[in-house]
Amino acid sequence: MPGQGLDYSTLFNRDLPPPAAAWEGHPKYNFIGGHSDPDMVPMEGFVESAGRVFRGDPRNISMYNFDGGPQGITPLRQFVVDKLAQHRGINVTTDEVLITSGSGLAIELINEILLEEGDTAIVEAFSFSGALGNLRRRKVNIVGIDVDQDGMRMDHLATALEDLRNKGVRPKYIYTIPTLQNPTGTVMTMERRHQMLELSEEYGVPIFEDECYADLIFEGEYENAIRSLDDSNRVLHIGSFSKTLGPGTRLGYVVASWDVMSRLLSRKNDAGTGVMDQMIVGDYFNHHYEDHILEMRSSLKRKCDALSSALRESFGPSIEFEIPQGGMYLWVKLPNGVDSRQLAGPALKEEIAFNPGPDWSADPDAAANYIRLCFALPSEDEIWEGIGKLADVFRREGAVP
Amino acid sequence: MPGQGLDYSTLFNRDLPPPAAAWEGHPKYNFIGGHSDPDMVPMEGFVESAGRVFRGDPRNISMYNFDGGPQGITPLRQFVVDKLAQHRGINVTTDEVLITSGSGLAIELINEILLEEGDTAIVEAFSFSGALGNLRRRKVNIVGIDVDQDGMRMDHLATALEDLRNKGVRPKYIYTIPTLQNPTGTVMTMERRHQMLELSEEYGVPIFEDECYADLIFEGEYENAIRSLDDSNRVLHIGSFSKTLGPGTRLGYVVASWDVMSRLLSRKNDAGTGVMDQMIVGDYFNHHYEDHILEMRSSLKRKCDALSSALRESFGPSIEFEIPQGGMYLWVKLPNGVDSRQLAGPALKEEIAFNPGPDWSADPDAAANYIRLCFALPSEDEIWEGIGKLADVFRREGAVP
Repeated sequence: MPGQGLDYSTLFNRDLPPPAAAWEGHPKYNFIGGHSDPDMVPMEGFVESAGRVFRGDPRNISMYNFDGGPQGITPLRQFVVDKLAQHRGINVTTDEVLITSGSGLAIELINEILLEEGDTAIVEAFSFSGALGNLRRRKVNIVGIDVDQDGMRMDHLATALEDLRNKGVRPKYIYTIPTLQNPTGTVMTMERRHQMLELSEEYGVPIFEDECYADLIFEGEYENAIRSLDDSNRVLHIGSFSKTLGPGTRLGYVVASWDVMSRLLSRKNDAGTGVMDQMIVGDYFNHHYEDHILEMRSSLKRKCDALSSALRESFGPSIEFEIPQGGMYLWVKLPNGVDSRQLAGPALKEEIAFNPGPDWSADPDAAANYIRLCFALPSEDEIWEGIGKLADVFRREGAVP
Repeated sequence: MPGQGLDYSTLFNRDLPPPAAAWEGHPKYNFIGGHSDPDMVPMEGFVESAGRVFRGDPRNISMYNFDGGPQGITPLRQFVVDKLAQHRGINVTTDEVLITSGSGLAIELINEILLEEGDTAIVEAFSFSGALGNLRRRKVNIVGIDVDQDGMRMDHLATALEDLRNKGVRPKYIYTIPTLQNPTGTVMTMERRHQMLELSEEYGVPIFEDECYADLIFEGEYENAIRSLDDSNRVLHIGSFSKTLGPGTRLGYVVASWDVMSRLLSRKNDAGTGVMDQMIVGDYFNHHYEDHILEMRSSLKRKCDALSSALRESFGPSIEFEIPQGGMYLWVKLPNGVDSRQLAGPALKEEIAFNPGPDWSADPDAAANYIRLCFALPSEDEIWEGIGKLADVFRREGAVP
């Protein structure tokens, strides 16, 4: 490290988060984040697609937004259109699709055009840490609505909207992950999807529908997107490729009508989404999506079964969780009074990482005794070993009997 | 387009730029932006590199930040380290390198940690539109310092720093593109580089050195980076791969010591830079950088010669410009009193696009009679044809005799 000439502490913006800690590598038993299964990454498929797309028009690389303009390259947007029609009941054109660098940027852009400090946003009481963190950074008031096994509770949502109206507050949106909710894994019933739309109309509040995980249902039929029920501009719909291919591909999308799209584009200052990712993933999925997703689903189901069994065997009845219909996570309730934030450090010393619940909660303390476990990355053997060791740590720390 | 259910005009953040215009495709004679030469994109090299990297560890794709953590993948950071040592006189380790989604994100992150509304930043009077636009969005006071053929004028910089000190203002940084300045194409002399460092020390103001174009010198020796003259944390150094490979690859980098790096990382909320780009470009450049850059330089020089000759032939002595030592741009002065913003529309009707000067100027009106022409994208034939037509348009509009 070079010698320190300048004292930056007097130069930094005064409203910064704490400095990042030095990178220390990945733990052996890794149940955090949205890492996915390395065996499911179609590396040979990417070689094949790269061979095709890099023998195409070099202006894709040499120009900003060569094929399709600032909304993203046409083959990938066409794939999104086709997939949404076939799997989510959504009928749109490529004009209504914006490709972003992961769904994180989709959330950032939507927040950028809609939110100001002091605004109010409605979310599921347990929700995606990235979405909650973005709202907190913007000093937006977060109203959490309870989730049960049928998704966000519409009676609670109606009460919250009415209470806010009585206080003169019009929330900027209702953020929901209706299909394989993060972290609870629940799927909202069709009846509630219709009810949410009615409430959106009654109170003039858009629905911000995040379907990052909807492709990952384990088997059988599942409900169409809320966006499929409304062809006006009421539902802003986003999705991701990170969950179906791996987070190394930074690709997500927004579906929005032009009144919103033209604003998103005016705030998209990244000089375009990375084209290599778009070309390779677009080509790969235009050829192999259906096969890939079926394999992915059955692999995830096996790992979910392994994690559930390992938890049952190692923890017995001291913890509670529902087995989800898909996705990558179990949302596990520890005994009341336990603070999962205190357990992360001791677990990491044994090379085990998990997500403490509070980061996934509108009210952090309400999820103090929850943890989120991602089962996509570790092998079945690592799941069994890691959960066995985790139970030892939790017992040693007095968190479970 | 779907029917409009909600009126978003009452929901949008009140501080938004105008909505984007609908995308209308690229013009035939395209002298704008930082597009690069399609013939110089190593498409077969990318196929070869993709074949290698996609037969490597799939965890590069299935995990966030698998190889090397949040600062970017190790082979690409190692390439940056090697290139900086060999070509720019900079000796750092991979710990001091952060890979970003283009140098635009590098600028965004540095601004994010240093700037607040009302702060002051010093820039070259004519400078990169993206950097100026970012400062304007943040409502930062911009102080422009004149540039001559030897780069930013140090006598003017000294006066400006003293004036600001007398007003109790400590600027947050001095932003400079010392090597092949954008848009003027000038290269700052070594003497001025040393003087800038002395002024930085005297006034306690960091230097923000942007070397996006430094690889693109046409021939011969050129000055080392300012960062090479100081091993403290005084110089924040950034660079880009977009200019050497094409803007479709969204890759840039920051060189900074840990006190700054740890803050940049705490504000880097993009879940990692796209890994496919990093893998392919890292592999390609680790094998072929020297060859690629030599070819690129000689091609750019030919096109620069074509543009200079075409301008001389079509415009005669009514315009002024210096022939740069490298880069991709000519910065062309039209007769006094001409407003280049008024000429962009008529030119576009003839399928010709250029950048009006005001976007590249700390004081927009001071560059009203300038235009920036990028010569990297069009073929030599298109350069000759396009400039001939541009002269016709400018004459018809009364801008030149």
